[in-house]
Amino acid sequence: MEAVTDPSVGDALAARAARVRDAMQQVGVDALLLSLGADLPWLTGYTAMPLERLTMLVLPADGDATLVVPGLEAPRVAEHPGLFSVLPWAETDDPVAIVAGLVGRRVTLGISDRCWATFLLQLQARLPEASWLAASTVTSPIRAVKDAAEIAALRRAGAAADRVAAQLVAGEIPLIGRTEAEVSADIGRRLRAEGHDKVNFAIVGSGPNSASPHHEAGRRVIGAGESVVCDFGGTMAGYCSDITRTVWTGGAGPASQFRDLYAVLQAAQAAAVDGATVGTPCEDVDGIARRIISDGGYGDAFIHRTGHGIGLEEHEDPYLVGGNCTALVPGHAFSIEPGIYLAGEYGARIEDIVVAADAGPDALNAVDHDLAVVDA
Amino acid sequence: MEAVTDPSVGDALAARAARVRDAMQQVGVDALLLSLGADLPWLTGYTAMPLERLTMLVLPADGDATLVVPGLEAPRVAEHPGLFSVLPWAETDDPVAIVAGLVGRRVTLGISDRCWATFLLQLQARLPEASWLAASTVTSPIRAVKDAAEIAALRRAGAAADRVAAQLVAGEIPLIGRTEAEVSADIGRRLRAEGHDKVNFAIVGSGPNSASPHHEAGRRVIGAGESVVCDFGGTMAGYCSDITRTVWTGGAGPASQFRDLYAVLQAAQAAAVDGATVGTPCEDVDGIARRIISDGGYGDAFIHRTGHGIGLEEHEDPYLVGGNCTALVPGHAFSIEPGIYLAGEYGARIEDIVVAADAGPDALNAVDHDLAVVDA
Repeated sequence: MEAVTDPSVGDALAARAARVRDAMQQVGVDALLLSLGADLPWLTGYTAMPLERLTMLVLPADGDATLVVPGLEAPRVAEHPGLFSVLPWAETDDPVAIVAGLVGRRVTLGISDRCWATFLLQLQARLPEASWLAASTVTSPIRAVKDAAEIAALRRAGAAADRVAAQLVAGEIPLIGRTEAEVSADIGRRLRAEGHDKVNFAIVGSGPNSASPHHEAGRRVIGAGESVVCDFGGTMAGYCSDITRTVWTGGAGPASQFRDLYAVLQAAQAAAVDGATVGTPCEDVDGIARRIISDGGYGDAFIHRTGHGIGLEEHEDPYLVGGNCTALVPGHAFSIEPGIYLAGEYGARIEDIVVAADAGPDALNAVDHDLAVVDA
Repeated sequence: MEAVTDPSVGDALAARAARVRDAMQQVGVDALLLSLGADLPWLTGYTAMPLERLTMLVLPADGDATLVVPGLEAPRVAEHPGLFSVLPWAETDDPVAIVAGLVGRRVTLGISDRCWATFLLQLQARLPEASWLAASTVTSPIRAVKDAAEIAALRRAGAAADRVAAQLVAGEIPLIGRTEAEVSADIGRRLRAEGHDKVNFAIVGSGPNSASPHHEAGRRVIGAGESVVCDFGGTMAGYCSDITRTVWTGGAGPASQFRDLYAVLQAAQAAAVDGATVGTPCEDVDGIARRIISDGGYGDAFIHRTGHGIGLEEHEDPYLVGGNCTALVPGHAFSIEPGIYLAGEYGARIEDIVVAADAGPDALNAVDHDLAVVDA
């Protein structure tokens, strides 16, 4: 972590903390205990290390915030005066006892969704009177609505991912004769070259593996005449990208069934993007894609939701899934990524990131959606 | 995940499961609920994705194990007949309800230490009669003692990290004039080139940043006449490496105080390695290093424990820290990594991985421990 010298950063964080305190009052939460996940960096600029030494911000509704941090990591913390104080603990201290002491008699506590279960269990043992809920109950409705600076950051990350996807559909990333893992590593290098600080994932599923939505790129050598699903993203200045394009290897082109499947998918994805308007419930956007794919005869082969929110985390609220009645508001940022998967044969997925806006859905990815046949 | 075709892998996993079931009986745990972290891959060969869709193995002491997995990830699961069955859930299912149904009337439940808190809270709400503990209570004493195949895997990973560290101390990795982040990325590339599947971290702390033990490699340009702490590791065939060497940039060589500091550190690290014998309590190994550093006048500047266990996870039991009375047994694998840090000036750390063995401490790293002065 570099020291933050721009005082406006501290102001922005303080404004977020004020909104969170308001939400805590409304929800009736006495203190937030923030550790792993995006809430902590969103509020403080500091990211906890995902290790066995506890880092936890104690943010009471009625008092000052304190960041409990391992002593050896304290030099990494860029302080923002007035926002929180830093309380380092030594190697033989019990950080859970320190957190419990800061919590005191407060009883309704919100803990980071991604905090390790072992720390929650230790805190529950120390604070037997407390009742617990996920911190996202307070933070997620706020974090899900991106401000202008956040949308700009997502747009930059999306444009960088687009440049790699454009190389893919143009046949500039060799596929035939390479393993999925080699192509995955190549995509990762290109994401970094285009400005990403970190590669979060680069799924490359070829042939029958393209029918496995979360396939881990492996030792399979990509052949000619195959579907290749490439779904990749990373982090750029803290914000995430996520894009999927499916290409077909080989000049003879895909079988007619795959062309049909892809046409249905492309229509569904485009319609869902168009339908992601302000005021539309998330589940209705999912329904748009699902109906077109079902009408096309592939309903059983669309085995996942249509999309997920994106921001500091790759997956966050709002989720475009049946049962989620949340209506889209300006600033909601999410993926639209239907897929069709025929087990043992092939699959396809198309994904863009979209921001809901009063002027209509604002797609952050623009790479051609037509089926690319690549000869490389 | 590649399909596992070697049947002996299934046998090895089944043997681990049998030992875990024995330990569950002894501890009095009715079921383990395994999600994120190393317990699940150690027992099943399958690693849960760290995402909002719950993956959880329900392993009852008295019945068959079931892996509850998101439907879209089910194609990734390599099944081992007899070890566990797979229960995929659809996007609009509630996986917590499915897990609770499998738990049934069992009351003492062990949950993965690294499972997200939000899932534990949901499970607690569904299973109000249950009492909870960390799964590591059962698994960690078993996992901490590595078998011959695991030690061989750690040795291979250590040798690969050694080859990169040898390049560092030989001056083959350019430092002067590059940013810490550039050197970190270079070290990462070299770890991959030497056989690592994944780079877990590559700390590069130069000048005053070398006094920050968990410094994140940043934009600082490394100059001549500076201490540079390089602490890096990755994963190779599932097992982790972790090594630290500190070098000095520039031919004139370090100031006499740094030479003194380094000599004390080197003596402390070597003595702690030599003292890590079978039967020695973990805290005594820490004490060996701490006493030498204190006697050398730097006691307040050694601000962290002496080491951590290593295996499928970078940090796991046993921890070499004050208060840990666990006696070393053959097969315990851990780091020995004292450090001395003078805030605002410089710091140094030396780290090797060591396996406790009847024949004496078995160091998996062998790169020269003398202070290297590199001119590159």
